[in-house]
Amino acid sequence: MRKPVLLSFLLLIGLFFNALANDGYKLWLDYQPIQDPELKTQVKNLLDGVFFYGENDTYQVIKKELELASENMLDQSPIYSQERLGNSKLWIGTRDQLSQVLSLTQQGEIRELGADGYWRGPLVFEGKTYYAIIGNNPVGTLYGVFNWLNSIQTKTFNSSSIISDSPKVKVRMLNHWDNLDRTVERGYAGASIWDWHRLPGYVDPRYIDYARANASLGINAVSLTNVNANALILTTDFMKKVKVLADLFRPYGIKVFLTARFSAPIQIGGLKTADPLDPEVIKFWKEKTVEMYSFIPDFGGFLVKANSEGQPGPHEYGRNHAEGANMLADALAPHGGLLIWRAFVYSHEVDEDRHKQANLEFEPLDGKFRDNVIIQVKNGAIDFQPREPFHPLFGAVNHTQLGMEFQITQEYLGQATQLVFLAPMWEEVLKSKTFQPSQSSTVASVVETPINENHKTLIAGVSNIGTDRNWTGHLFGQANWYAFGKLAWDPELDSKAITDEWIKLTFGNSSELASKIETMMLESHEAAVDYMTPLGLHHIMGRSHHYGPGPWVTGGRADWTSLYYHRADSLGIGFDRTSSGSDALAQYAPEIAQEWSDPNQIPEKFLLWFHHLPWDFKLKNGMTLWDGIANHYDLGVKKAREMQQTWASLKGEIDPERFHHVEQLLAIQVEEAEWWRNACLLYFQSINHLPFPDNIEKPEGDLEYYKSLRFPNAPGI
Amino acid sequence: MRKPVLLSFLLLIGLFFNALANDGYKLWLDYQPIQDPELKTQVKNLLDGVFFYGENDTYQVIKKELELASENMLDQSPIYSQERLGNSKLWIGTRDQLSQVLSLTQQGEIRELGADGYWRGPLVFEGKTYYAIIGNNPVGTLYGVFNWLNSIQTKTFNSSSIISDSPKVKVRMLNHWDNLDRTVERGYAGASIWDWHRLPGYVDPRYIDYARANASLGINAVSLTNVNANALILTTDFMKKVKVLADLFRPYGIKVFLTARFSAPIQIGGLKTADPLDPEVIKFWKEKTVEMYSFIPDFGGFLVKANSEGQPGPHEYGRNHAEGANMLADALAPHGGLLIWRAFVYSHEVDEDRHKQANLEFEPLDGKFRDNVIIQVKNGAIDFQPREPFHPLFGAVNHTQLGMEFQITQEYLGQATQLVFLAPMWEEVLKSKTFQPSQSSTVASVVETPINENHKTLIAGVSNIGTDRNWTGHLFGQANWYAFGKLAWDPELDSKAITDEWIKLTFGNSSELASKIETMMLESHEAAVDYMTPLGLHHIMGRSHHYGPGPWVTGGRADWTSLYYHRADSLGIGFDRTSSGSDALAQYAPEIAQEWSDPNQIPEKFLLWFHHLPWDFKLKNGMTLWDGIANHYDLGVKKAREMQQTWASLKGEIDPERFHHVEQLLAIQVEEAEWWRNACLLYFQSINHLPFPDNIEKPEGDLEYYKSLRFPNAPGI
Repeated sequence: MRKPVLLSFLLLIGLFFNALANDGYKLWLDYQPIQDPELKTQVKNLLDGVFFYGENDTYQVIKKELELASENMLDQSPIYSQERLGNSKLWIGTRDQLSQVLSLTQQGEIRELGADGYWRGPLVFEGKTYYAIIGNNPVGTLYGVFNWLNSIQTKTFNSSSIISDSPKVKVRMLNHWDNLDRTVERGYAGASIWDWHRLPGYVDPRYIDYARANASLGINAVSLTNVNANALILTTDFMKKVKVLADLFRPYGIKVFLTARFSAPIQIGGLKTADPLDPEVIKFWKEKTVEMYSFIPDFGGFLVKANSEGQPGPHEYGRNHAEGANMLADALAPHGGLLIWRAFVYSHEVDEDRHKQANLEFEPLDGKFRDNVIIQVKNGAIDFQPREPFHPLFGAVNHTQLGMEFQITQEYLGQATQLVFLAPMWEEVLKSKTFQPSQSSTVASVVETPINENHKTLIAGVSNIGTDRNWTGHLFGQANWYAFGKLAWDPELDSKAITDEWIKLTFGNSSELASKIETMMLESHEAAVDYMTPLGLHHIMGRSHHYGPGPWVTGGRADWTSLYYHRADSLGIGFDRTSSGSDALAQYAPEIAQEWSDPNQIPEKFLLWFHHLPWDFKLKNGMTLWDGIANHYDLGVKKAREMQQTWASLKGEIDPERFHHVEQLLAIQVEEAEWWRNACLLYFQSINHLPFPDNIEKPEGDLEYYKSLRFPNAPGI
Repeated sequence: MRKPVLLSFLLLIGLFFNALANDGYKLWLDYQPIQDPELKTQVKNLLDGVFFYGENDTYQVIKKELELASENMLDQSPIYSQERLGNSKLWIGTRDQLSQVLSLTQQGEIRELGADGYWRGPLVFEGKTYYAIIGNNPVGTLYGVFNWLNSIQTKTFNSSSIISDSPKVKVRMLNHWDNLDRTVERGYAGASIWDWHRLPGYVDPRYIDYARANASLGINAVSLTNVNANALILTTDFMKKVKVLADLFRPYGIKVFLTARFSAPIQIGGLKTADPLDPEVIKFWKEKTVEMYSFIPDFGGFLVKANSEGQPGPHEYGRNHAEGANMLADALAPHGGLLIWRAFVYSHEVDEDRHKQANLEFEPLDGKFRDNVIIQVKNGAIDFQPREPFHPLFGAVNHTQLGMEFQITQEYLGQATQLVFLAPMWEEVLKSKTFQPSQSSTVASVVETPINENHKTLIAGVSNIGTDRNWTGHLFGQANWYAFGKLAWDPELDSKAITDEWIKLTFGNSSELASKIETMMLESHEAAVDYMTPLGLHHIMGRSHHYGPGPWVTGGRADWTSLYYHRADSLGIGFDRTSSGSDALAQYAPEIAQEWSDPNQIPEKFLLWFHHLPWDFKLKNGMTLWDGIANHYDLGVKKAREMQQTWASLKGEIDPERFHHVEQLLAIQVEEAEWWRNACLLYFQSINHLPFPDNIEKPEGDLEYYKSLRFPNAPGI
């Protein structure tokens, strides 16, 4: 016993004392020195003559970013030119600013990219070639600069080729579920980075690094507060605090949103009602909004969770979601603000199937929402499970602007102890065919397409950011933040490409190392699904904190129990959502409903999500359902161990601090995977009394042991 | 409005991008490069030949510390000698290990220093002079090394002089009021650094830096958990987590303590009672303690808050503090553990004067406690007020070992927004004459003196440490941690000397800079007393969070109101604790009671603590009491502004990140000082209807405004 501890102690003190220790704070903006001589010469040449076509706050932050990057990559400061010709090499500006040096064709091409797009490439003017980074607005220019720096870090920069890009989605947003007391709901990375108590007087330098990281991904909106909202954020005292953040974020192109508690007129307005049709309530929100814009002229708008999980909403007054949302939208409209209304609704009365509730409530309201309303829909109908089929609302309404809500924080996916890379899961959802409104429609196309020219599109992600030094608790949590930003910019991106890029930015350009880490990352989500909820199982984790397995959870509200979702009995397992069951399948397009209603045709990953099947149901590989479940759980454990081994093989190739950080967490992940497998299989076996398949590792503990585990202080509740 | 924000924004981004930014993480262990050529040569000479007289875990951490220091100070690694003669220059070991090279006199001198003492100086052996750092045990040696490194940083190192030192107090302890959910009671520096959820599997490298910082001050004990205790910390799951920390801290000479919830036998033991005389309860604690020592063989012991502010204790069962404490002490005794029992007790029934309660409860128990019990007494009888007379229990009991409890975290002293250096306050308490047990006794001598050879002495400080990057929220909070450690080691130290040392370690050796910062620090406590609670006023802050003024707080439990403490009415103000009042004064030695019972003899700083006096009472300077109060408040504001100006004059001499950090906080401090002054004077004036003295700045707001302020999410509650 003594030895390993001593070893680990010495290792740890070794880590600390490493002067080059990398604690992960710098994220993907590490700007390592350029090793390749040719690349170095190219970059140095450009940074020796930087000319800005104008002056504004965003160019100030570009300058600072160039200085930081240059000092780190080249060990020198950039040299700024005072005139656009002469010694200048690198031109930075907007299309307007550069109009005199751009051909009409070039101007047209760049204009086509739209508001936040950028163009970078060689530009020949009066016989000399310059390298130009051009946006349609200063923030587009900033995005172009970040993209250029990214290409240097990933060694893909080529000064003779033209790169242009523009976001496919207008509002690319982080949702912080941060409470005003600095706790974070479903936060696993320490406390909230928003130090409300010391704002507005004390400004944490971290706020700037947060803005840089987001801007480097194209994230242009942040909602600062929990959707389970506190009305106090709308008081004048807090507006003054929020204003400081908004002022800091503005040059980075980031707009601030807040969550609005629907009952705020009562809590902070002194009214007796929050009825959205009450004139006093309407007046309250109008005035509140006017006040907000007096502090923050470009305030983004409100994000609202109403009539869901006990949150107040219009239903208390016999009004529907549209009446609630439109009242707030009308207050925001004169200022250009957005009203984002969440579709994650379920009432206190348990429906026969929670899966159906959003469609039941929102389909009848299709076309009833104002132009500045976006309905923000979770990727699946239940609640950010390890795997969900796409939410049936996507494609089901044609006159309501839907936005996507992903969860970056790993509430159900290993929290801060597991490496689970979410891009493949998001990609799976985004690329899902909806068959509505057209045969070729996908979730991505629905999200990317404004229902008319007045509407904005939206992808939001629930943040995994906290005060932990590396921001996300688990170093690989950074990859999820990164991948979210990239997919919000372009929902059709390949998760492999994103992975590749993040690895290079984080761990450098060694291709062997990159390929190993890529394999770990790309397989990690399927592994987690296997050891947590294979074959369409869902919502069988520990109650409330959602940490670890809890297939036995029962008692209290039915749809907060595991039994409600897995419905295992001596005969079979799974939730029948076909026409013989809750018929939630009917909410999807007929093409899907038809295929998925057949247990032999539905993709097996969704099998038990939609079907209740006997334990001896035959899977495609010939196994019985029970053997298949057991094998998936076991495979998940094996994959987790493989990840651990792969990482171990990288020892010496990654700095010791980050290596040991991940090494420790992977050891926890393997234990947790075994825990999930053992607990779930023992539980299901206690229901079906079938023997374990021979090839499966037998659990060490017994079911009672697993049921006895308690985690009263698990984080994030 | 727009301009200042832009400026501050640019300043901030400038700060971030400074590659040399100093975020305060390194505390006083920054090891700046040595500039002085002579000093550099001396140090280099020694580090070029380091010889260790033996091998153990503590020497491993010494080696690591020398490597870090050497790399930073000299840009080279130390060179280790394999033999004690030959090329060796610097000898490191214990007295035993060096016995062959020490004279008997030298050995005797070193032995005299006791357990954790150290000796460092030149040692001539076989005609050659070595520099030796010698402890009586390895941890003493570690202390000697830290002291040597300190002397290099402060440029006081002289290789020809002998320095020896030893602690005057056995147990030098931090008390963390950290909850298991990572909130920190009265914590203003982020979340708890103890990541319980991810322990034992995940070990945060910060734990090592924490241990280094403590060891560098001689702190040798830490209680990890809140005195408002959660019994779960005593479960097996948590013991495994605590063990990891204990293993990490052991080489640094730091023992781990935990808080024991008195009702744990009920909460986690399945018993129906926690009666300390119940055999099952006795058995529970015995077994629990045996289990604890099976994980942590050198576990320090338990810290208990019982029958105070609603915490469970022996009184529920008709038992007294001694019966409660001794039962736990008996469980710990076989393992060498300590039982620390807090004297901060007050019952649910409001006494006529809470000031008297500890003496009333503990004096009758004098001599009734086991040898391994220490009664931990706050510095004053109320509750860590900005200024309190020393606690009357010091000197009042002769057969009970008393330990000191200071509060490092600034609950009542500006929290994390104010620079208030606490060493002068602690010095004032420690140097107070108690006149008991002897005429020459002081609080320090009482605390330093074991009541017999079986007893250990104790100074504890309630930690101000959290996850904030700079550990303490306010950079100058580090000085309070530092000063606490130094005073726990030697309660008779001068706070000026400590200040001097800390400034040099933190900001470098410029004497002009040091003298300016020293003035700020040494005057800051008196300033805070002036603008918060001058002339003996106390406990008039905001309810519950204790943030800001609240002299009007009333309603609910009497001794949680301000009125109970200031007793202001149209005729006068102050708490009569003389024989005509609560007679708390009688708990002090007659010498004190006599002098302080006369309002014209008592030091004015304690005037209203002990006397209720008319508003026109004449102060020593001839002012009326009302004018005096007003002038003190105003003076406090002026002093806060002076601190701000002094700091502003240091611009350019301190790195921009730390400069701006403190600059922002000082601006908040001035606002808060004005708020305190205005609120308190307006309130008292509303009671006495007297005019403000002419020379006092008139408040801008009115009393109603100040009373209306609310801070529902103030930290630390």
